[in-house]
Amino acid sequence: MKCIILPDKFDYDGSQISSLWAYNSFGVQEDSIIVFRGACDVKIEHMIDLEDRRANESIWSEDMVSFIIEHFDSTDLKLVYARQRLFTAIVGEYLSGLGVYTSREGDDLFLKGKKLTVSIASTSAVSQKIHFGINVSHEVYGNLREAGIGDDESIVRFMQEIGEAYVREFEDIEKDLRKSRPLGVV
Amino acid sequence: MKCIILPDKFDYDGSQISSLWAYNSFGVQEDSIIVFRGACDVKIEHMIDLEDRRANESIWSEDMVSFIIEHFDSTDLKLVYARQRLFTAIVGEYLSGLGVYTSREGDDLFLKGKKLTVSIASTSAVSQKIHFGINVSHEVYGNLREAGIGDDESIVRFMQEIGEAYVREFEDIEKDLRKSRPLGVV
Amino acid sequence: MKCIILPDKFDYDGSQISSLWAYNSFGVQEDSIIVFRGACDVKIEHMIDLEDRRANESIWSEDMVSFIIEHFDSTDLKLVYARQRLFTAIVGEYLSGLGVYTSREGDDLFLKGKKLTVSIASTSAVSQKIHFGINVSHEVYGNLREAGIGDDESIVRFMQEIGEAYVREFEDIEKDLRKSRPLGVV
Amino acid sequence: MKCIILPDKFDYDGSQISSLWAYNSFGVQEDSIIVFRGACDVKIEHMIDLEDRRANESIWSEDMVSFIIEHFDSTDLKLVYARQRLFTAIVGEYLSGLGVYTSREGDDLFLKGKKLTVSIASTSAVSQKIHFGINVSHEVYGNLREAGIGDDESIVRFMQEIGEAYVREFEDIEKDLRKSRPLGVV
Amino acid sequence: MKCIILPDKFDYDGSQISSLWAYNSFGVQEDSIIVFRGACDVKIEHMIDLEDRRANESIWSEDMVSFIIEHFDSTDLKLVYARQRLFTAIVGEYLSGLGVYTSREGDDLFLKGKKLTVSIASTSAVSQKIHFGINVSHEVYGNLREAGIGDDESIVRFMQEIGEAYVREFEDIEKDLRKSRPLGVV
Amino acid sequence: MKCIILPDKFDYDGSQISSLWAYNSFGVQEDSIIVFRGACDVKIEHMIDLEDRRANESIWSEDMVSFIIEHFDSTDLKLVYARQRLFTAIVGEYLSGLGVYTSREGDDLFLKGKKLTVSIASTSAVSQKIHFGINVSHEVYGNLREAGIGDDESIVRFMQEIGEAYVREFEDIEKDLRKSRPLGVV
Repeated sequence: MKCIILPDKFDYDGSQISSLWAYNSFGVQEDSIIVFRGACDVKIEHMIDLEDRRANESIWSEDMVSFIIEHFDSTDLKLVYARQRLFTAIVGEYLSGLGVYTSREGDDLFLKGKKLTVSIASTSAVSQKIHFGINVSHEVYGNLREAGIGDDESIVRFMQEIGEAYVREFEDIEKDLRKSRPLGVV
Repeated sequence: MKCIILPDKFDYDGSQISSLWAYNSFGVQEDSIIVFRGACDVKIEHMIDLEDRRANESIWSEDMVSFIIEHFDSTDLKLVYARQRLFTAIVGEYLSGLGVYTSREGDDLFLKGKKLTVSIASTSAVSQKIHFGINVSHEVYGNLREAGIGDDESIVRFMQEIGEAYVREFEDIEKDLRKSRPLGVV
Repeated sequence: MKCIILPDKFDYDGSQISSLWAYNSFGVQEDSIIVFRGACDVKIEHMIDLEDRRANESIWSEDMVSFIIEHFDSTDLKLVYARQRLFTAIVGEYLSGLGVYTSREGDDLFLKGKKLTVSIASTSAVSQKIHFGINVSHEVYGNLREAGIGDDESIVRFMQEIGEAYVREFEDIEKDLRKSRPLGVV
Repeated sequence: MKCIILPDKFDYDGSQISSLWAYNSFGVQEDSIIVFRGACDVKIEHMIDLEDRRANESIWSEDMVSFIIEHFDSTDLKLVYARQRLFTAIVGEYLSGLGVYTSREGDDLFLKGKKLTVSIASTSAVSQKIHFGINVSHEVYGNLREAGIGDDESIVRFMQEIGEAYVREFEDIEKDLRKSRPLGVV
Repeated sequence: MKCIILPDKFDYDGSQISSLWAYNSFGVQEDSIIVFRGACDVKIEHMIDLEDRRANESIWSEDMVSFIIEHFDSTDLKLVYARQRLFTAIVGEYLSGLGVYTSREGDDLFLKGKKLTVSIASTSAVSQKIHFGINVSHEVYGNLREAGIGDDESIVRFMQEIGEAYVREFEDIEKDLRKSRPLGVV
Repeated sequence: MKCIILPDKFDYDGSQISSLWAYNSFGVQEDSIIVFRGACDVKIEHMIDLEDRRANESIWSEDMVSFIIEHFDSTDLKLVYARQRLFTAIVGEYLSGLGVYTSREGDDLFLKGKKLTVSIASTSAVSQKIHFGINVSHEVYGNLREAGIGDDESIVRFMQEIGEAYVREFEDIEKDLRKSRPLGVV
C-alpha cells in the first residue's frame, strides 16, 4: 500500500472520490492513501452521502487536509465502513498523542463540541474508497488551528504521519491474518 | 446485535472463541458481544494465534475482563480483523474518556509501556469471532487497577459501556452504509 | 428489516427499482419492503429485464400492487434471485390461504392460466432489489379482482400481510443461520 | 445440476449432510439433489442444528423421503438458507397441486397442525448443503400417508417430480440472472 | 458454457466488452465465449484500460480475431484476471501445438519480439468480461499471417478450437472443484 | 508474495497442504510459494482429492519437485482452481522455453504421453492452497530427467525460476486490476 503526500495545494471538489482517481492522476497501481491540503467545495453531483444531498448541505472549507483511501482487495461495503471508522479512530489517536482530545462519533471527530471533520465511504464495481477531511481553519466548525496545530510544518507532519500510520495498520492486519487458525466449533 | 454482561465470575479458557458458543451457552440468535470477568488461562488446543503456539506462550491472567464478539454476516478475514482493530480503538477511547491514556499498536493497548490486553480474531465456515481481554490486575503486565479502575463498580461500568459502545458502532455503520451512493468512476 | 405501506396511491414507473430509492424517498436506513398501489407504466430506460427491452414489451397495468424490496447485506445476484423466487412463493401461499390457487413458474404467478404478476431483480454496487407487481384489475392479464379480492379493504390487508410475511421470513432466516454448525466432511 | 433418485431403500443417519457425500457415494461432479426413502435416525454427532442438540431432540422417522441438496457455487449461509426456504415452498406447492394443503413456517411444513417435515442447512469451506425430510408414515407427526399419498407409486412420483422441480427452478434462476441489467441509482 | 463462432465478418469497436452484450445480441443465457473476425478500432469511451486512455493509445487492427468471454458466476476482479491469464496461456499452448512458439507476458503474447495480441478484463455489478484479440494481419505488430496461419480455413479452425478449449477448461475446473475436500489445518 | 526455495531435501507427505503450514514452518506472513525437492508419499489422511481416495491411488515419487502455494486474499474455490491451472501453464511455458514440449490437460502436464505431474487445490476457512509436484525421476511416469533436465543445477534453476515466475504473475495481476474501469452495460 502506497502513501503519497501531494507537495502543492490541491482543492477537493468531490471528484477525487471516484474509483481510479489515484491511478489516473498519479499512475499508482497499489492500494493507496493520497493526502493533500487545499480548499474543499463538493459539487452536488459528487455527493455520495444522500443525506447531504437531501439536506442540500454544503460541504465547504477554506482550508482542509484530505485523505483519499482506495482499496481494490474487496468491494464489500461493510469492510470499507469498518476501515473508515478505524481511520477516524487513528486520527483521533494521533491528535491525542499531541495532547488534543477529540471525541469520535462514528466517522466524525469533535473538538470541544464542534465538528472537526467530514467523511464518506462507498464502493464501485472495482474498488472501495474513503474520503476523510479535517479542517485546518474554519469560521464555524472545529479546526486544527484552534487545536494549536496551525503552522505549516505541523500540518505537513500531521498529513505524513497519519498517512503512514494507516499504511502501517493495513499492513499489520494483512500480516496478522496470515497466522491465525480457523475457529473450532461448539 | 445483542450485548450480554454475565453477572457472575466466568473464566476464559479459550473454548469460548469457538463459533456458536454464544448460542450454545445463552441461546442468542443474533450477532453478539458477551462480556464477562474471571481468570484467563488459554489451553493450547484453543490457541488460535499460531505465534503464541510456536512461542509456547502462556496466555494467563488472574483477573481479566473478556469481550467475545461474534458476527454471522460474513466470514471475511479482512473484515473481522478491521473490526478487531476498531474494537481495540473503542476501548482506548473509553479509557481516554476516563483520563487513562493508552497507546494502541494493532490489536494491543499499552499503558505506560506495559501490555494491557490480549486479542485474537478468526473465522470458521459459519461465523467470525473476536476475543479481547484486558487485565483487571496482573503482576507483570499492565492492568486496570494500576490505571485507577479497580473497584468492582467501575469494572462493571467498563464492561457495560464498552459492550454497548460496540453495538452502537456496529448499528451506526449498518445505517450509514444504507445511504451512500455507489462511486463514480474516472 | 422495515415494512412500509404507502397510504396513498403511488404509480410505478420503474425508477423505484433504483438503489437507494427507499432512503431517498422515505429516509429508511434498514433493509426494507415498500408496498404501494397505483398504475404501472415502466419507462424503457428503467427496464432492467433485457428480454422485455428486446421485445419492446410494455409493462403496463391500470391498477397494481407493487412490492419494492431492498437488501444491503449482499450484492450477490444468486441471492437476490433466490429471494425473489421465495417472495413469489410467499404471495402464492398467501393467496392459497384465501382459497385462491395460483401456479408459480419462476417469478411469475398464474391464475387460471393467466399471468397475474410481473417481477424483476438485480443489483448495483451497493444493494440488491426486487420489484414484484400484482394486478388488482387488468383487461387482459390475471388480476386480484377476478380472484375475488377486489374491495379496497382486502387489498390493504393483502399489502400489509404479505409485506409483514416477508419481513418475518427474512428475520426467521437470520435467526436460523445463527444456530447451525458447519458441515462435516466425508 | 443433477437429480438422482436412489432406487433402493436408503436410511438417513445424518452423515449424508456432510460435504462431498454425493461425490463419494455416486461420483457426481455437479451440483446435485439426491432423493431416497428409508428410516431416519440422526446420530448426535451429525446434528447440525444446535437447537436439536441442546434439546437432546430425537430426529426419528420409520419411513421418510429425504432430499439432499449440494451446491458448490457459493458458501454463503444466507444463500443456502434462502434456497432451503424456496425448496420447502416447492414441496408445499407440489402437495397443493395434489389437493393437499399444508402451511409453511420457515423450513417446516405442517399438515392439519402436525409437523410433516424436518430440515437443516449449512456450509463447509467447500460447499453448501440442505437436508429436507418428509415423513411417509409416522405415529406422532404429520405424514404423507395421512395425506392420501401412501402407495409406493405416488411416493416415487413425489420423489422424482420434486427433485426435478428444484433442478428446473435452479436452472431457471441461472438463466434469468443472465439477462438483467445492473440497477440504476437515485 | 456456450461457444458461438460468428459466421460473418464482425468488427470490434469496444462496445462488445459491455456486460450483457452476448444476451442482447444473441440471446445467450449462459456464460459464453463469442468469437468473431473483423477490423478492430476501439472508441475512446469503450476503453477499459486507463493506461491506454492516458497514453491516448490507439487500439487498431485491420484484421483481428476477437474472443469475448462473459461469466456471471462471480464479479471478483481477481478471478476474472486469473481467467484472462489462463486464456492467454491457452492461446499460447494452441499455437505451440502448431509449432508456433510465442512468449507470454501477463495477458500478452509475443511472436519474435512483436506484440501479437491485445486484451482487457473487468467487471460490472452483474458480470465479468474478457476481451482477447489477436492480429490476423498487421503492418507493425505480430500477426497470425506471419506465423504461417493465414488462410481462412486455418483461422476458422483457430477460432473454433480455442473457443472450445476454453469451454472445456472451464467445465473441467467446475468438475474438479466438486471432488476436493477442504484443507486440514496445522 | 514471497518465494522460498528450501536448500535441503524435504519430503512431501501431504501434510504440507494444510493451511498455515508455511507460517508454522517458516514464519512467513505473506502469501507464499514454497519450493522443495524430495520423495513424495502422500498419506491417506492428507489426500484432498477424493478421486484418489476412492481409487485408493498411491501418490508416490522417489524424487519430486514440489511447489506449495498459499493465498489468504480469498477462500473462493473457483479462484484457487483458476490459479492452479494458470500455474500449470506457467510450468509448461517454462519447459517449452527449454525446448521441452509438454501438453497440458487441466492441472496435469504430459510428456510424450506420460503423466509428468500431480496437483491438488482446495480451501479452508482461512486460506487457499495448491500443491503442484513434478517428477524428477520416476520408473513409470514422465519425469524431468527423461526430458534432459536431470542435473542438480538445472533442477535448482527450475525450482527458482518457476517460483519467481508465479510471484511475478501474481504481482502483475494485482497491478493490472488497479487500472481498469468497471464495464459499461448494454
